[in-house]
Amino acid sequence: MHTTLTCSATGQTYPIDRLQNLSEAGKPLLAGYDLESLRETFTPDVIRERSIRSMWRFHEVLPVRHPEDAVSLGEGMTPLLRCRCRGPFAGFNDLFIKDESFNPTGSFKARGMSAAVTRAANLGAEVIALPSAGNAAGAATYYAARAGMQCYLFMPEDTPPANIIESVVGGAKVFLVNGLISDCGKLVRQGCEKFGWFDLSTLKEPFRIEGKKTMGYELAFDLADEDDTEELQLPDVIFYPTGGGTGLIGMWKAFNEMEQLGWIGSKRPRMVVVQAEGCSPIVKAFHEGADHAELFPNAHTIAAGLRVPAAVGDFLMLSVLRESGGTAVSITDEELMQGVYEIAQHQGLYACPEGGAVWKAAQKLVESGWMKPDERIVLFNTGTGLKYNHLIDLGDLPRLDHTDPNCLDVIEA
Amino acid sequence: MHTTLTCSATGQTYPIDRLQNLSEAGKPLLAGYDLESLRETFTPDVIRERSIRSMWRFHEVLPVRHPEDAVSLGEGMTPLLRCRCRGPFAGFNDLFIKDESFNPTGSFKARGMSAAVTRAANLGAEVIALPSAGNAAGAATYYAARAGMQCYLFMPEDTPPANIIESVVGGAKVFLVNGLISDCGKLVRQGCEKFGWFDLSTLKEPFRIEGKKTMGYELAFDLADEDDTEELQLPDVIFYPTGGGTGLIGMWKAFNEMEQLGWIGSKRPRMVVVQAEGCSPIVKAFHEGADHAELFPNAHTIAAGLRVPAAVGDFLMLSVLRESGGTAVSITDEELMQGVYEIAQHQGLYACPEGGAVWKAAQKLVESGWMKPDERIVLFNTGTGLKYNHLIDLGDLPRLDHTDPNCLDVIEA
Ligand SMILES: Cc1ncc(COP(=O)(O)O)c(C=O)c1O
Ligand SMILES: Cc1ncc(COP(=O)(O)O)c(C=O)c1O
Repeated sequence: MHTTLTCSATGQTYPIDRLQNLSEAGKPLLAGYDLESLRETFTPDVIRERSIRSMWRFHEVLPVRHPEDAVSLGEGMTPLLRCRCRGPFAGFNDLFIKDESFNPTGSFKARGMSAAVTRAANLGAEVIALPSAGNAAGAATYYAARAGMQCYLFMPEDTPPANIIESVVGGAKVFLVNGLISDCGKLVRQGCEKFGWFDLSTLKEPFRIEGKKTMGYELAFDLADEDDTEELQLPDVIFYPTGGGTGLIGMWKAFNEMEQLGWIGSKRPRMVVVQAEGCSPIVKAFHEGADHAELFPNAHTIAAGLRVPAAVGDFLMLSVLRESGGTAVSITDEELMQGVYEIAQHQGLYACPEGGAVWKAAQKLVESGWMKPDERIVLFNTGTGLKYNHLIDLGDLPRLDHTDPNCLDVIEA
Repeated sequence: MHTTLTCSATGQTYPIDRLQNLSEAGKPLLAGYDLESLRETFTPDVIRERSIRSMWRFHEVLPVRHPEDAVSLGEGMTPLLRCRCRGPFAGFNDLFIKDESFNPTGSFKARGMSAAVTRAANLGAEVIALPSAGNAAGAATYYAARAGMQCYLFMPEDTPPANIIESVVGGAKVFLVNGLISDCGKLVRQGCEKFGWFDLSTLKEPFRIEGKKTMGYELAFDLADEDDTEELQLPDVIFYPTGGGTGLIGMWKAFNEMEQLGWIGSKRPRMVVVQAEGCSPIVKAFHEGADHAELFPNAHTIAAGLRVPAAVGDFLMLSVLRESGGTAVSITDEELMQGVYEIAQHQGLYACPEGGAVWKAAQKLVESGWMKPDERIVLFNTGTGLKYNHLIDLGDLPRLDHTDPNCLDVIEA
């Protein structure tokens, strides 16, 4: 259970016992924990012995007093898959994919929503609302359903159909908007004022990031298992497909907490932000040496999760990149879809386009000499490809007439 | 590692060191293990301490010599979700859903394919082939890709699009056939003869069932965790959506193995087969008191996994139902879709239609008095609803013009 809430820009503190959105400065609030007093009882060995098979095995650093209070659907504890070195993956001999498609509603958004809905429910919220152009919608829907809350969703008309469908099935009130995610965000703010809904927009409440940070905690345990050691391990480089950046900022927060807990030293992975060429505000700001990012005009990409032209956590992402010695890369839509096919056919998993993007980014940074292929690299596949089936062109599949005894003749031995 | 392969009908044994399909009697072969000699080293406590986070933590009773030989994508170890008692679920106060959507390719088929592809690869197969009208296709595709094998799939033209798309992305050779799954099966047999492919049809090779049986092993551990006890636990009743029946037969086999290992006693859950009204050969045979099922004419249902008009393991399923004191129920397509909505909106998960069916079957058997609602009941949700989005009618969703300052007026407080 957290003990503080602090503005990420000004350091001002806020009470933890009520629903909170942004700070007075209009910046994200971050949760703090009494890590010093947890050092004795909250250790890697204690965690390994827990039977809780979800991210709530880390409940001491999540917003609950008791793990039973969590609104949980089995989120987290996703597999870390070692990549096979073949085809385009040749030479990458210490490459892993953290496969976040193994989450309720098929994406890492489940982690954030599990934490945020838990806290909102425990503080008495009855209706949540958020804008979403992708996976956050479904995640919010199903955690709200589980918690017995109502969920209002404002989604751009061109949101992938799978995201709309799953939300409707789960009972959310879905409104399609003739605009961008930012226009939807404005309607959410108005609705919250008018109807008293609780705004669950990313980084506009303090706990989605808390859920997502568990990706950082888990990774350290996963890699220790991989090396058959008790000692927690971090990789050399982490590639993260970045929209709002909550996952990136969350993992960085997790590493700092883990150091304060005495679990790891001060060494950190280099963090790499991956965006789509048609919407890459952070890539642009990073290479210009800026502290904040400008609104990216005309944002477009088929990777719906990356279509975030302006992020309230921009300054936090940019500081993570600098502190970690990382970088930022953009990838065309064509490249990222090629990445999806390559991961599917060589590694055996159907990644989302955002997952395709991080793999192509890793290839690029090896080509440019920024990174060696045999470094220990972790790619985040943030969701399942199943929600992006509308992007796949099947072409002409061969059709067989089973009543024709020679129908198999079209197949070459 | 198994030590025997035995015909399930005649008891004749077969060599284990080569690729095998059906027995000479045309019946499934079942793998046997030297359970007596495993009793010392293969114990629940040993398994709990393993860091392997997949079904391969049970590798001693799976077809591998070393767990590293497994072709694994993180299958198994799915959550067992306790249902909330509300709405239509009121009174069901010890009801659980084993959520198999947390599997590679989004269904329990991953378990079977992981085991079968592992064994086929270890015995030198290079090309696999199978008929599929649903989730088996994607699972076979991705395990073959992981193993570096080729995969030929023969699918009825009316297979749900999601199953076709994921298979094509994963690099399988997909052929659409103007017929039923049985017609596809015939083409597979011809192709295997002509081209030397290995036939991976369900129950026509011995190891898909071995993978699926791990659902039975896991359940016993899940329920022990739930009760916070070391002692393995089984429920009173298990509901299973049944097509080929491999999962049902597999779990029954698991329970028998667990008894021989000394892990559980002789008490067993009552096993309930759930089928769709438009294709319910086992339900019919069970209520007629038959040993074998007849081909179900004119098979149709939107639950693609249940559209199996004739199953090679029919006699095995019927004997499980009798031995366990179970029963068999059929559900209309309308009912099962209603089940999907109820699970989504009250429990927070988007189940496949097959998962919707088992919930409605449980309700029916309470209404008929066959079962009490407060018995300990486990429903198997065998896959994710995301692959069945084509069945959802969105109706007219409200559209908002964000440039209209009064657009929120359509919402009632
Ligand atoms: C699949 C996927 N990947 C990545 C992202 C970006 O996540 P974040 O907000 O943590 O940057 C999203 C957000 O919608 C997403 O859906
Ligand atoms: C979602 C789903 N449920 C159930 C089944 C039936 O499985 P079994 O062959 O074990 O009876 C299938 C088979 O295709 C399926 O895809």
